[in-house]
Amino acid sequence: MAVTPIPELARRSKDASRELATASSSAKDAALLAAADLLVARTADILAANALDVAGAEAGGIAAGLVDRLRLTPERVASMASGLRQVAGLADPVGEVLDGWVRPNGLHISRVRVPLGVVAIIYESRPNVTSDAAGLCLKSGNAAFLRGSSTAIHSNLAIASVLREAVAKAGLPEDSVIVVDDTSREAAVEFMQQVGLIDCLIPRGGASLIASIKEHATVPFVIDGDGNCHVYVDRAADLDMAESIIVNAKTQRPSVCNAAESLVVHAKVAADLLGRLDVALADVELVGDGRARALVSRMGEATDEDFATEFLDLKLSVKVVDDLDAAISHVNRNSSGHSEAIVTNDVSAADRFLAEVDAAAVLLNASTRFVDGEEFGFGAEIGISTQKLHARGPMGLAQLTTAKYVVRGNGQTRG
Amino acid sequence: MAVTPIPELARRSKDASRELATASSSAKDAALLAAADLLVARTADILAANALDVAGAEAGGIAAGLVDRLRLTPERVASMASGLRQVAGLADPVGEVLDGWVRPNGLHISRVRVPLGVVAIIYESRPNVTSDAAGLCLKSGNAAFLRGSSTAIHSNLAIASVLREAVAKAGLPEDSVIVVDDTSREAAVEFMQQVGLIDCLIPRGGASLIASIKEHATVPFVIDGDGNCHVYVDRAADLDMAESIIVNAKTQRPSVCNAAESLVVHAKVAADLLGRLDVALADVELVGDGRARALVSRMGEATDEDFATEFLDLKLSVKVVDDLDAAISHVNRNSSGHSEAIVTNDVSAADRFLAEVDAAAVLLNASTRFVDGEEFGFGAEIGISTQKLHARGPMGLAQLTTAKYVVRGNGQTRG
Repeated sequence: MAVTPIPELARRSKDASRELATASSSAKDAALLAAADLLVARTADILAANALDVAGAEAGGIAAGLVDRLRLTPERVASMASGLRQVAGLADPVGEVLDGWVRPNGLHISRVRVPLGVVAIIYESRPNVTSDAAGLCLKSGNAAFLRGSSTAIHSNLAIASVLREAVAKAGLPEDSVIVVDDTSREAAVEFMQQVGLIDCLIPRGGASLIASIKEHATVPFVIDGDGNCHVYVDRAADLDMAESIIVNAKTQRPSVCNAAESLVVHAKVAADLLGRLDVALADVELVGDGRARALVSRMGEATDEDFATEFLDLKLSVKVVDDLDAAISHVNRNSSGHSEAIVTNDVSAADRFLAEVDAAAVLLNASTRFVDGEEFGFGAEIGISTQKLHARGPMGLAQLTTAKYVVRGNGQTRG
Repeated sequence: MAVTPIPELARRSKDASRELATASSSAKDAALLAAADLLVARTADILAANALDVAGAEAGGIAAGLVDRLRLTPERVASMASGLRQVAGLADPVGEVLDGWVRPNGLHISRVRVPLGVVAIIYESRPNVTSDAAGLCLKSGNAAFLRGSSTAIHSNLAIASVLREAVAKAGLPEDSVIVVDDTSREAAVEFMQQVGLIDCLIPRGGASLIASIKEHATVPFVIDGDGNCHVYVDRAADLDMAESIIVNAKTQRPSVCNAAESLVVHAKVAADLLGRLDVALADVELVGDGRARALVSRMGEATDEDFATEFLDLKLSVKVVDDLDAAISHVNRNSSGHSEAIVTNDVSAADRFLAEVDAAAVLLNASTRFVDGEEFGFGAEIGISTQKLHARGPMGLAQLTTAKYVVRGNGQTRG
């Protein structure tokens, strides 16, 4: 099968983005709802394409867990459709006036939220990302330029074909959604280098994808980063609260970036808290420094590398500190800048921790698990940025936009 | 002379940034005012150091214009000091609450403006950048990590030494301002690669510096980009206004990025406007398409490359179009995304141009020369970004910050 050159696809995406940038909210919502309906109506076609991918993956000896991520069912297609309907119901971020003022010379200046243009997303095997990402891009007025994995290519192209048909029926350009059909590694690198055509590249995937972006991408990107998240239990903490927050942050869903990976505990309450956690975290492997190990016999030794590691598993590192300074300094040294929590009833300790810890989100008396787009009330999320530039923290529709200054005069010239 | 390793300096800068991030406005302002006073008091020392640089540059056969940029005088030192006093008088951006809401589960979420951390600036020969950049960084709570050119190294180190002394006297860390003393090319590359220590890199310089950043930098950066700025004169323009805006945008200061480089004119008014400009822009070289040349005998031919070029000189390209669509499409194809203006009295043409042209700033009936931090009322500026991510347009103090989510609960865990 002949593939379409990446630069040609990128150019078509850019052209579509020009039209999308000024599309009305009602046109975009109509396209999203039409796409949701058509996805459901075409379930059989999508499942047939998906069966080819699943058969290929099984023949290729791909692990059962990955095949499961790849596999679509009527319920999974319905869930993609309901995701699009949900995005249609969110407020349109485009056109929001962020700021505005009048200069002494009479110039009216306003700063207005506008789409980025072409948002490129590179992702791993889940085919639902094709629909989810396209929906968020469309709502925010961006063209979705998508590159999925080769294992899911039939599914991704089938889903994109349905989305394109629905979007065109609703009167918007079908190139609002493009899935790259060249699944070679060379094409992935070329994809990351469409300078002047791609306005923002967002990876959805694991460490090797992120590393590849850092190595090869020449277009601007926003990275959904690691979460080596800490919970610091202060001497003035309510230990019932601390226990329940740590259990939640560590075990409610250990494989995600906002799960806690490390406990820092004030020496004054270490014995009491670690005694409770020995029981409450019976299923969790504990590794700690010498002082922590002296309090819990089953605890292994934590190396410096353990303290710097996002386990993404039922494993927790433990550090005992003598004061708030030591806690803040340990957290800042090891943090990946995602989400960091303190449990305390001491207002001044809380204020210092919240101010001095350098992360996308800092929390007082709450589980780190709350740091995501859904829990923040954004309605939908494309990832969680640990960058400081552009978007920091959960990325919803607003983070898929930029701003433009609009200056209105009546003939002013500069003196 | 032994130089200090870049990673050691970057680490010291990072440590200073932790302390600066929570410094009060009054402490930062006191440091800025102390630095201004000490610069003036130490004028003789600074001029002595500068004399070494000037002598070296002259001995090295550097062009007179560049030597002039390098040369300091008592007036130039006084002007650096008054720049610092002006920055002290601006509002502190840190701590501004950008947003805040309460979730149904009782979590209070706010988004607060915080410093970036370490702002690295790499710049060319003007030594005043050392003081100007340090002042903006200090006011916004960032450590200034500075790398100037080898030709200005004595001046830059002398200025930094004064700033460090004043900042320390005011009770803030002296490493708030660090000038790299290793002026080798290898050190410049190493400077751009201090991942995890530099939070944002900003170049102040020409095309070769920008190219080097794009090639070598592995830390996040914001680029002050080219300005291939257009003025489009619509069929419904007031031609007196159009003439005065074009003359201002082209000639008031042709060497800067917000000067106009290209005129796009509607065919209906082309003869009248170009006849006026033939006279009003007598000192400006004109190049144009066939239709424009048919109207002005002295006009040369404009190639596609001319239409894509930022001349930074008394030269203007001219394109005649038949309608607004053609104008918008020509501008979007050739724009560098800086500042684009329309002159018209037609509201719907204005609205379409302002909405559909993709640039950091779009202007109606005003000169492109207004797009800078001073004219926008920011009080001071570190550059003008043509990126879409993070800062777009003039960068003042606010653009030297990021945001952090602060989440306050009372024991919430995720269900």
